[in-house]
Amino acid sequence: MNTLGNKLKVTVFGQSHAPAIGCVIDGLPSGFAPDMERVSAFMARRAPGRNAWSTNRKESDTPEILSGLVEGRTCGAPVSMLIRNSDQHSRDYAGLKRTPRPSHADYTAIIKYGGNYDIRGGGQFSGRLTAPLCFAGALALQLLEQKGITVAAHIAQIEGVFDSAPDFASVARTELETLLKKPFPVFSDDAGIRMRQAIEAARLDADSVGGVIRCFALGLPAGIGEPMFGGVENRLAAALFGIPAVRGVSFGTGFAAAGMRGSEHNDPFFMDGDRVSARTNHAGGVLGGITSGLPLVVNIAVKPTASIAKEQETVDLETRESTSLVIHGRHDPCIVPRAVPVAEAVTALTVLDMLLE
Amino acid sequence: MNTLGNKLKVTVFGQSHAPAIGCVIDGLPSGFAPDMERVSAFMARRAPGRNAWSTNRKESDTPEILSGLVEGRTCGAPVSMLIRNSDQHSRDYAGLKRTPRPSHADYTAIIKYGGNYDIRGGGQFSGRLTAPLCFAGALALQLLEQKGITVAAHIAQIEGVFDSAPDFASVARTELETLLKKPFPVFSDDAGIRMRQAIEAARLDADSVGGVIRCFALGLPAGIGEPMFGGVENRLAAALFGIPAVRGVSFGTGFAAAGMRGSEHNDPFFMDGDRVSARTNHAGGVLGGITSGLPLVVNIAVKPTASIAKEQETVDLETRESTSLVIHGRHDPCIVPRAVPVAEAVTALTVLDMLLE
Amino acid sequence: MNTLGNKLKVTVFGQSHAPAIGCVIDGLPSGFAPDMERVSAFMARRAPGRNAWSTNRKESDTPEILSGLVEGRTCGAPVSMLIRNSDQHSRDYAGLKRTPRPSHADYTAIIKYGGNYDIRGGGQFSGRLTAPLCFAGALALQLLEQKGITVAAHIAQIEGVFDSAPDFASVARTELETLLKKPFPVFSDDAGIRMRQAIEAARLDADSVGGVIRCFALGLPAGIGEPMFGGVENRLAAALFGIPAVRGVSFGTGFAAAGMRGSEHNDPFFMDGDRVSARTNHAGGVLGGITSGLPLVVNIAVKPTASIAKEQETVDLETRESTSLVIHGRHDPCIVPRAVPVAEAVTALTVLDMLLE
Amino acid sequence: MNTLGNKLKVTVFGQSHAPAIGCVIDGLPSGFAPDMERVSAFMARRAPGRNAWSTNRKESDTPEILSGLVEGRTCGAPVSMLIRNSDQHSRDYAGLKRTPRPSHADYTAIIKYGGNYDIRGGGQFSGRLTAPLCFAGALALQLLEQKGITVAAHIAQIEGVFDSAPDFASVARTELETLLKKPFPVFSDDAGIRMRQAIEAARLDADSVGGVIRCFALGLPAGIGEPMFGGVENRLAAALFGIPAVRGVSFGTGFAAAGMRGSEHNDPFFMDGDRVSARTNHAGGVLGGITSGLPLVVNIAVKPTASIAKEQETVDLETRESTSLVIHGRHDPCIVPRAVPVAEAVTALTVLDMLLE
Repeated sequence: MNTLGNKLKVTVFGQSHAPAIGCVIDGLPSGFAPDMERVSAFMARRAPGRNAWSTNRKESDTPEILSGLVEGRTCGAPVSMLIRNSDQHSRDYAGLKRTPRPSHADYTAIIKYGGNYDIRGGGQFSGRLTAPLCFAGALALQLLEQKGITVAAHIAQIEGVFDSAPDFASVARTELETLLKKPFPVFSDDAGIRMRQAIEAARLDADSVGGVIRCFALGLPAGIGEPMFGGVENRLAAALFGIPAVRGVSFGTGFAAAGMRGSEHNDPFFMDGDRVSARTNHAGGVLGGITSGLPLVVNIAVKPTASIAKEQETVDLETRESTSLVIHGRHDPCIVPRAVPVAEAVTALTVLDMLLE
Repeated sequence: MNTLGNKLKVTVFGQSHAPAIGCVIDGLPSGFAPDMERVSAFMARRAPGRNAWSTNRKESDTPEILSGLVEGRTCGAPVSMLIRNSDQHSRDYAGLKRTPRPSHADYTAIIKYGGNYDIRGGGQFSGRLTAPLCFAGALALQLLEQKGITVAAHIAQIEGVFDSAPDFASVARTELETLLKKPFPVFSDDAGIRMRQAIEAARLDADSVGGVIRCFALGLPAGIGEPMFGGVENRLAAALFGIPAVRGVSFGTGFAAAGMRGSEHNDPFFMDGDRVSARTNHAGGVLGGITSGLPLVVNIAVKPTASIAKEQETVDLETRESTSLVIHGRHDPCIVPRAVPVAEAVTALTVLDMLLE
Repeated sequence: MNTLGNKLKVTVFGQSHAPAIGCVIDGLPSGFAPDMERVSAFMARRAPGRNAWSTNRKESDTPEILSGLVEGRTCGAPVSMLIRNSDQHSRDYAGLKRTPRPSHADYTAIIKYGGNYDIRGGGQFSGRLTAPLCFAGALALQLLEQKGITVAAHIAQIEGVFDSAPDFASVARTELETLLKKPFPVFSDDAGIRMRQAIEAARLDADSVGGVIRCFALGLPAGIGEPMFGGVENRLAAALFGIPAVRGVSFGTGFAAAGMRGSEHNDPFFMDGDRVSARTNHAGGVLGGITSGLPLVVNIAVKPTASIAKEQETVDLETRESTSLVIHGRHDPCIVPRAVPVAEAVTALTVLDMLLE
Repeated sequence: MNTLGNKLKVTVFGQSHAPAIGCVIDGLPSGFAPDMERVSAFMARRAPGRNAWSTNRKESDTPEILSGLVEGRTCGAPVSMLIRNSDQHSRDYAGLKRTPRPSHADYTAIIKYGGNYDIRGGGQFSGRLTAPLCFAGALALQLLEQKGITVAAHIAQIEGVFDSAPDFASVARTELETLLKKPFPVFSDDAGIRMRQAIEAARLDADSVGGVIRCFALGLPAGIGEPMFGGVENRLAAALFGIPAVRGVSFGTGFAAAGMRGSEHNDPFFMDGDRVSARTNHAGGVLGGITSGLPLVVNIAVKPTASIAKEQETVDLETRESTSLVIHGRHDPCIVPRAVPVAEAVTALTVLDMLLE
């Protein structure tokens, strides 16, 4: 379903080519005055067509507030908003219903929803639906900031290029703030250049590339989260897999922990002045589902975009025969940079929800 | 919290050294007659002390049914059961409250629950709590089998040793059935030998090793799952992170997808006789949160056990000083083999829940 | 919170004087083509200002569909809609924040949300928020109709005037269809005349009157509902108390059952041809939380509107002194007639949700 | 389903003739030391066979704690417990599957669960399942007491006899405490005598009588509850309809509000010293779903027990013919007195859940 959260509930609606997309945010504290310029700036980080390495499609993401704010402050009622979809003239999307794009939700949506599925622009599975999530997340980020919590993500990997990583145990707020100011958020600018080259090369090949986003939350108190199925990992993973193209979610050292020994992976505690800290943070700030007070570190694997301009094998669902498909038009060779604010938004919403519970 | 599922709800209770552990399973179809010998055999795969490569602690996992079965058949009421904890005499666990084990839930549980936290044997965070999950999962597995669905997992990795992997698009039911019969479930028996050597080496070093479990579900119909936050990935990840020591969950090609190009990662559709199939299954059987009809493939990263017999740095929560810790007694150098049936159980419960919705 | 339902989720947003009110309906089956004229006609039954016995305030309830419908058919994505609020110029509502209206949510909302609460027109507690509920309910009613289920309510009581009641065990579909066509839905037109006289008398006295709505659902299969906390009564009551001014919910004979003996209250079963039926239906179609196949009968007590034009005692929250209050402007002397379609809508949504589970 | 609550979750299991009944209570604060003697005393109020006016069946309700308590204090893990069912030898219950008792859940349970339904002693629908609810409620009551909140109920009506009612706006804690000490909790001892006479008369007639329970919660802070579907009424009603035989739930003046005018029903605010109070409390302490700080007052209608010893009409589900039925054995002519602690328990659990959220 299209609702995220318990005490702070975000319900997303819309399709790529519906009259509008939007969301309803229920459970925000009353009296909060969001800085709307910062909300817009945050949403702009997600919007396509702003950068050389992104798709050309221009999206107008200007949100219209429908309820919940009175003179710029939350009043206790759900904050709801919509974004009009300007581009509603449909190219020949009908064809895609017969010959679904490989590795795209087209096929499973047709199975699930039948002939009435709105396939135009990816319908409800379009990345465009992450715009309202970013709106909601932008509010959550500001509320977390008021509690001294900073959430920021970097592009940890694009195809074969890896960003440098900070020390998970001691990553500084200033490092994250620097990251948040970069149009292409990486710690190593050199890696960033090579990542953009990889994206550009994929574009020239009419192809796409995937990557990994690593998201940090600094300043979380220890003790947040419930055991077993109510842990921080359970909640964050359940939320982050809601972002299109996410294929994996891991914490701290993640899958690499599988190759390690306990003596290497364990994070030795020590007293850092008056505070319990740890020498390393392979755990990514969560032990037994509960925050330890160290930085929360979550890794999100993003597959290469399914929509590519190369000829691909597929099936004709009408004739029930194998066939092939070329998708014309512009393609986004890499959604990873645009997915960074989405990952921050979803992380922020989930963390805030757990804090409000 | 300790409840999993929507229509099929499993509530787990107990601590390692409480009088009992157990579970309540609400929502099973009425009239189902579980084969209790197979339930016991399944639970035995999880129990420690059965194999050379496992811990020495013997656990009696004999379940006592409290309700829900009449003459061996479900009657519509919740099936509930308990397992008595024989070993309730506590060694000096009190010390662990002062000097928490690095990378163990001890520390965060003390923060969350305060001095009353039941630290004996890992309390409610003990791996022993997975026994009732296996009981519930064993029932789910039998019900799935009636629907033609097979769930089975292999040990894909232990430390630096990797098992061979079947073709995700065409893995056969017979391959999985063979796997289910092996005491150490790997496709490559040679890899299995080297994995056990790695475990044995860790034990001799008073250390532990991690690994990866890969779980398959064959026979799932296409069209199961909801978009966005209700997808199969969201639901499975939320459940699987409930297993102790899980650090990452990914689907199909998982994090490796991040390094691939779309042309390489996309799974080309083709007609396999009358059935839509795909040449590859990098997607792991899920597109847009909804099953495609191809095998479901989920990868689960397990960290090396935190409890090792080596001396480790930690803190004394009373004196608020750094100190060190040696944990005496026997340790399980690798929980991965025992976590295999738990992963199958949790996968089966989640898949059945989604089928019942 | 502002979300109703499990598999069919309706999320309502807006305040009386916000730019808009609306809702998001998630979980409708795909391919359903709602008859929008009938939706409008249904919503018009709720809108004020249409009848002599209602308030004078005119509300434009024209819904604008934002998503979920393609060429008039549901496509699987959430159906979302908004209704613009034309009347946003605020009279002196600020005064009400100091001197809350007795028995109105004003006071508790100020306590809960503080000074930022949007008190204009009753804010998020305004009866106007039931318009989107009626939109959603109108869709549910059409879907139920396709399954042979009719939902209809009558005004069972206004102040001291009682409508006649049909035999709960044998109320006919045609009786309900007649009811649905009446602008003032009562079985006894004579009682209807006296009810309207009671409303008119209250209006002339600058006062208000309450009443009881009784809602029927015909054609429900036996066996719907879960035991204990998942029963039809639990679900319906939880939903119906979401309608403003509802003070009680009962089933079948309701509170009068408390004065009866078992021999009188028990509904004797008999074979009605091939079908199990009952001589009476004091149970209102539900036994142990599960439908019996007899007509579902639910009674909803509605208090007299809190907003009356008489002088009333209240407090000044600023000076912390007792004071008095006269609310100027037009008042609705009785919301019961307008609450009838809302009760039908909420009943239909809840019943459909349970059928879809 | 058999789970109640959000942050404080109670899962009930068992059938009347299963090996055991019990519950799992997840979400209790850590470090709470329940007074087990008071728990037992509270549970004894529910148990049958203790009083002249109740059934003769003796039930041993001694709870066995399975987990969650260490040295008498909650440790953060779910508190779970069971009660063994001593009487498991089944009389001829099989007959009831063919000829279901009128107005009993037998019939709908057979429809829902089929031939495997455990009909012995009412199975999972047995009033016996309220024993674990009382255990859980007893813990909640003690926790509420620590917060200065008193929950107590009286028998407001038995058949045609009505108890006197205190002033809803000013009912005193001492009045409730007196009530809690009475074996037959009424304000007017004279009414209590006549109620018991009515019960005795029903018993002599091989019949049963219903009644009304009115439950109070004193000391609740203002501002608890969420709007629309998250209100105190929604939550309490959803919970209270989980008690067997409940047919209606209302707040404050309840259904009588339907016959009143606004000027009569509105509760005028006034300053009671420094505190906002009201002259009357027709609202029962809730406005717009949110507590006002006045006493919470909820009325619960209980039907006469379906099981009576008189001959009744029913159907033979095998021959599909009308027939008649006499149920032999002892019957409880009135469950209302025993349902009083159950109502208190469910109210306490729901209120505590809302306070913990």
